[in-house]
Amino acid sequence: MLKIAIDVMGADNGVAPIVEGVLQALKAKEFAAVIVGDEAQIAPLIPSKLKGRVEILHCTDYIRMEESASSATKRTESSIFKATELLKEGAVDALVSPGHSGATMSLATLKIGRIKGVSRPAICTTMPNITDMPSIILDAGANTDCKSEYLVDFAIMGYEYAKNVIGFENPRVGLLSNGEEDNKGNELTKATFKLLKPFAFFKGNVEGRDIFNGSVDVIVCDGFSGNLVLKASEGVAFAITSVMKEEIKSCICSMFGALFLRGVFRRLKKKMDHSEYGGAPLLGVQKVVIISHGSSNARAIECAIYQALHALESDICAKLTAVFASKADTQKD
Amino acid sequence: MLKIAIDVMGADNGVAPIVEGVLQALKAKEFAAVIVGDEAQIAPLIPSKLKGRVEILHCTDYIRMEESASSATKRTESSIFKATELLKEGAVDALVSPGHSGATMSLATLKIGRIKGVSRPAICTTMPNITDMPSIILDAGANTDCKSEYLVDFAIMGYEYAKNVIGFENPRVGLLSNGEEDNKGNELTKATFKLLKPFAFFKGNVEGRDIFNGSVDVIVCDGFSGNLVLKASEGVAFAITSVMKEEIKSCICSMFGALFLRGVFRRLKKKMDHSEYGGAPLLGVQKVVIISHGSSNARAIECAIYQALHALESDICAKLTAVFASKADTQKD
Repeated sequence: MLKIAIDVMGADNGVAPIVEGVLQALKAKEFAAVIVGDEAQIAPLIPSKLKGRVEILHCTDYIRMEESASSATKRTESSIFKATELLKEGAVDALVSPGHSGATMSLATLKIGRIKGVSRPAICTTMPNITDMPSIILDAGANTDCKSEYLVDFAIMGYEYAKNVIGFENPRVGLLSNGEEDNKGNELTKATFKLLKPFAFFKGNVEGRDIFNGSVDVIVCDGFSGNLVLKASEGVAFAITSVMKEEIKSCICSMFGALFLRGVFRRLKKKMDHSEYGGAPLLGVQKVVIISHGSSNARAIECAIYQALHALESDICAKLTAVFASKADTQKD
Repeated sequence: MLKIAIDVMGADNGVAPIVEGVLQALKAKEFAAVIVGDEAQIAPLIPSKLKGRVEILHCTDYIRMEESASSATKRTESSIFKATELLKEGAVDALVSPGHSGATMSLATLKIGRIKGVSRPAICTTMPNITDMPSIILDAGANTDCKSEYLVDFAIMGYEYAKNVIGFENPRVGLLSNGEEDNKGNELTKATFKLLKPFAFFKGNVEGRDIFNGSVDVIVCDGFSGNLVLKASEGVAFAITSVMKEEIKSCICSMFGALFLRGVFRRLKKKMDHSEYGGAPLLGVQKVVIISHGSSNARAIECAIYQALHALESDICAKLTAVFASKADTQKD
């Protein structure tokens, strides 16, 4: 039975919603969980009938959001350090963490190690769009300053993930730029464009709006840009919802109309809701690591666990290892 | 009477909506227009009672969207070349163009010239947000690769524009980054942060979502990042509207409810609609140049003209000239 470690410390809303997400996943899927965190808080939440599939690895220290990621390597008693060790030793098959994402990345990269040939691991975030299939964007924040070779590796990893884990038959990869024309871009993307051109999956430059219209399946960018567009997108969605709510409340007539639209709003929320996609895999490390948002609710954690199981079943790490090994061979020739 | 040149060639939907916007503005405000473009198409659209306030400068050549901006300087018979010459000679006070924005920028920078001390002109775009005041973001696309000194100039220009033209009493300026903490950012923004720290208007790093929540009034970034977040934001807004429309249409019950929400949707559209803000000034050149979207409707052009008039009345170019002159003096000391 697959075994997944979940670091339940350091999330924005405490231990309870994270543990609840684990329990929901345990009820739905066949796997065992190692919950890493404060036993006194966790144990009372585990129902007796699930106890056989849950281990608790007790620890109380964790990396606070305001702490720097670099301190993580020294904090050997922290939850993320212990969870990463479990993964390193092979005591678990995958790791899900809604804690300090910088700490998770550092420890995963240092202790688990990069796949040979991958220049930098990247955070791969799933985005809703107007089609029935989501798109993925990477790097969503692991590497603020990138070289063009990193972006090529992100493209390869994104393609393989979209194909093997999400299930696209022939994922189309686009390079995020300030225009669709081949000559658009900054120095980084122009250099990357040239390197990506030989790949059959590469569909050229795409713009910010293409993240949401399904014109490509994988969007490649540096981690700084990825973070900007993700946060801006969240901001717009939040602004539209707030203004609409306020406008609806301002008149009894529209409040009445809104009653008939409850289903529409619910389906819209479900389609645009990040929780449904769980977390973001850190692609390029040798084992499955899923980084979840610090504010994850139970549903988001549940989905992040499914994502981890899915990644394990698809054997994505072995596939990436093979792809980058053959890439190295080609370059040697 | 102030005189404004409008390049009506090269917009996405032809001459008619642009001319219509000019006419709407002429009816509402006291100014004279020089319409630059194909007389055969323009003349029939001008009603006789407005003829006294409209001149037509005939030309048929224009820079196509797919042409490179660099060709603009050689195309001496093109509409944007002629319009820029009018501005340079002082035959008009300001220029509005929905044509090729790269061509407009190149010609404005080369022929009108930069304000002394400004490292690079920047496109300054007005953004809707959840508060009653908009925010502005610059650079929205003029400079894909920036140095930190450019971003400092953008901050100063944005501050002055927000204060003198939009009417903020004490505009707050933020630096677009991948986190709010002082140590967040890429190499460019970290270096910029240090340079901006001494300015009283500088409120530190902001994230993509802060563009829409009113936490600062002016958002500074390089032109590549600015373009990405603007286009991503448009993409999200479009995706939400599309999904909502489709969902509403899928059920008679929600179609009925939507009837009661027409006012809400209309006000939401008005609040989130770019047309209401007109175009984007190119700040840092010696005269008023407003760059409008190629797909501008009549209302957007009308508002872009008001924006030009407003910029002229506030004497923003003279103010920027004075600020950058005193900045140079301070640096000499």
